[in-house]
Amino acid sequence: MTTPAALRPVCVLGLGLIGGSLLRALHDGGHEAFGYNRSATTVAEATADGYDASDDLTATLRRAAAADAVVVLATPVTTLAPLVQAVADHAPDVLLTDVVSVKQSVATIIAETYPGARFVGGHPMAGTSRSGWTATDPNLFRDAMWVVMTEDSTTVDDWLAVAAIARATGAAVVPAAADAHDRAAAAISHVPHLTAAVTAAVGGGESDLALRLAAGSFRDGTRVAGTAPALQRAMIEANRIAVLNALSEIIDRLVNARDDLRDTGTVEVLIDDGHRARQAYAAVANGPMEPIVDVEIGAAGWQEELRRQGHLGRVWLG
Amino acid sequence: MTTPAALRPVCVLGLGLIGGSLLRALHDGGHEAFGYNRSATTVAEATADGYDASDDLTATLRRAAAADAVVVLATPVTTLAPLVQAVADHAPDVLLTDVVSVKQSVATIIAETYPGARFVGGHPMAGTSRSGWTATDPNLFRDAMWVVMTEDSTTVDDWLAVAAIARATGAAVVPAAADAHDRAAAAISHVPHLTAAVTAAVGGGESDLALRLAAGSFRDGTRVAGTAPALQRAMIEANRIAVLNALSEIIDRLVNARDDLRDTGTVEVLIDDGHRARQAYAAVANGPMEPIVDVEIGAAGWQEELRRQGHLGRVWLG
Repeated sequence: MTTPAALRPVCVLGLGLIGGSLLRALHDGGHEAFGYNRSATTVAEATADGYDASDDLTATLRRAAAADAVVVLATPVTTLAPLVQAVADHAPDVLLTDVVSVKQSVATIIAETYPGARFVGGHPMAGTSRSGWTATDPNLFRDAMWVVMTEDSTTVDDWLAVAAIARATGAAVVPAAADAHDRAAAAISHVPHLTAAVTAAVGGGESDLALRLAAGSFRDGTRVAGTAPALQRAMIEANRIAVLNALSEIIDRLVNARDDLRDTGTVEVLIDDGHRARQAYAAVANGPMEPIVDVEIGAAGWQEELRRQGHLGRVWLG
Repeated sequence: MTTPAALRPVCVLGLGLIGGSLLRALHDGGHEAFGYNRSATTVAEATADGYDASDDLTATLRRAAAADAVVVLATPVTTLAPLVQAVADHAPDVLLTDVVSVKQSVATIIAETYPGARFVGGHPMAGTSRSGWTATDPNLFRDAMWVVMTEDSTTVDDWLAVAAIARATGAAVVPAAADAHDRAAAAISHVPHLTAAVTAAVGGGESDLALRLAAGSFRDGTRVAGTAPALQRAMIEANRIAVLNALSEIIDRLVNARDDLRDTGTVEVLIDDGHRARQAYAAVANGPMEPIVDVEIGAAGWQEELRRQGHLGRVWLG
C-alpha cells in the first residue's frame, strides 16, 4: 500500500513536536531526510540522537534545492512568512508542503510571500500537550489522519509526493480542500481547546477544595489546556472565521441548556445530543478505516472525487 | 492510618458501578459487607463472582438492622426516596450514608422522607464512563477523594463510621459541608459533563470528515459525554442551583473570548486563564496529599475545623 520507493528526499524546517517527529519517522524508516531548526540547542539534541540537522537555514535550503527535496514547513503559522521568503530566495523550485493546523491562512501567507511557490498543504492530526525535541516520537503519526490539500489546481505529481510522505510515517491520507479542512479543524480541534480552557478556568477558580476533588471528568476534559499557550493561540487565531462560527454554536447550545435547566429543570437536549455525537465518534474512531475507491489519480475530475470521498470520512491508502 | 478494626458491617443498596465496586472493595478487604439490587440479573452476576447479594430489599434491611450495619444508598438520586422509606420501615435505627454526587438534594430527600434518620452523607470522587456490575472494580476508590459530610450537627461516632468505610477502600477523606461540596462538584464534575457534551455535539454535527479527523483533543475532551445520559442528567439536574451558577460563568467567559477573537483577533485571556488553572490542578493532582493536622475529632468545634482544613484541599487519613 505505501510507496516508499517513490519517496523523494525530505527537508523539514522546524524540529518541534511535529517536525522533529517527522524527521525521526522518515529517517528511522530508511528515507533521506534532513532538518533545520533556528535553535542550536535543538539541533544539538537532534544530532546527538543521530539525525541530520542544521541551524543554517540558507545552507539547508540550498541542499534541498540540489536534492530536489520536498520542503516541509513545520513551524507555527506566525513564523512562516520569513521561512517562505527564504525558500523563494534559496530553493525557488522545490515542492513545498506544511504541517500547520490551519490551511487557508497558510495558503494566504504563501500566496502573499511567494506567489510562484509550488505548494500542496498538509496537516497531520497528531500531537500531545508536550512540545520540543524531547517530546518527539517517530511513531507519532502511525494510524493518524494526515490531511493533504486537494484543490482543482493541485497537480498529480505534487499531490502524490506529499501523500507519500504521510504514508511513509504510517498515517492515512485524507483529501480535503482548505476551507473544508479549516471548518472541520475548528469543530474538532480548535474549539475543543477553548472548551478545555474554560472548563479549567471555572473549575480552578472555585476553591482548593474543588481542585482537590477533581477527578476523571476534569482531568480528561482539561488536558489540552496544558498545551503551551502560544501554540494554542497560534492555531486558534489563525483559523478565526471558522472558530468564530463553531464557537457561536457552542455558546448558543450552552445558553439553551442553561435556560432549560433554569426553567424546566432538565438538560436532556444537550446531554442526549452530546451522547449521540460521542457514540458516532467512537464508531468512527474504533471502526475500520473505509478506503477511497475507484479513483484514478490524474483522471479528469480526480481532485473533486477525492474531496467527495474524503468528506464521507474515507481515507487514501494508495 | 486506616482503622479496619473499627469498621462495622456494611450494607450496600444498589450494585452499579459505585455500589458494586464498594461491595467488592470491602469484601475483598476482609470486611463484612452485603448488598441489594432490584435486578435479579445483577444479583446473579455478583453472587457468581462470590459476593453476598440479594434482590429482596426487606430481608436485606432486616439483616442490616440485626447486624447494626451502616447502610449505603448507592442508587441514582431520582430513585432514593422509596429506598429511604424502606429503611424507615425495616431498619429505622441504622446509620445511613450515600455515595451520590450531590449532597444538598440527598439531605432534603432524607429529611422529607424520614426526618428521624441518622444520616452522614458521602461522595467518592471516582467513576468511569462505563456502568453496571461488569464495570465494577474493587480498586476504583484507591487514592480517590471521598467527601464525608461534616455539619455542626454531625456526631463523632457516625462521622468516624462513615470515614472508616472510605478509608477501608483506600480513599482519602475530604470533610465538607453539603453546600460547599455541591459548588465544588458543579465546577469540577457536573459542568465538565456539559462542556464535554457541547464539544461532542458541535464537533459531531460538522461532517463525517470532521469525525474522521478528530484526534486527542476531541477524544479526551468528550470522553465523559459517553456516560449513560440518565446518570449524567440525574447528577446535573439534582445540583441545579450550583450548576446554573458555574454554567453562567462558563458562558460569560466564552462570550468574552468570542468577542475578543472577533474584535481583536486574540483568545489570549481565556487560553492563559485555562493554562494557569490546568497547571494549578496538575500541581494538586500530582503533588503529595496534605493531611489534616491538629484536630481532635470530638473536641469543641471539630466539625468547623475539619471543614476549614478541607476547604484548603487537605485530607483526613486518620
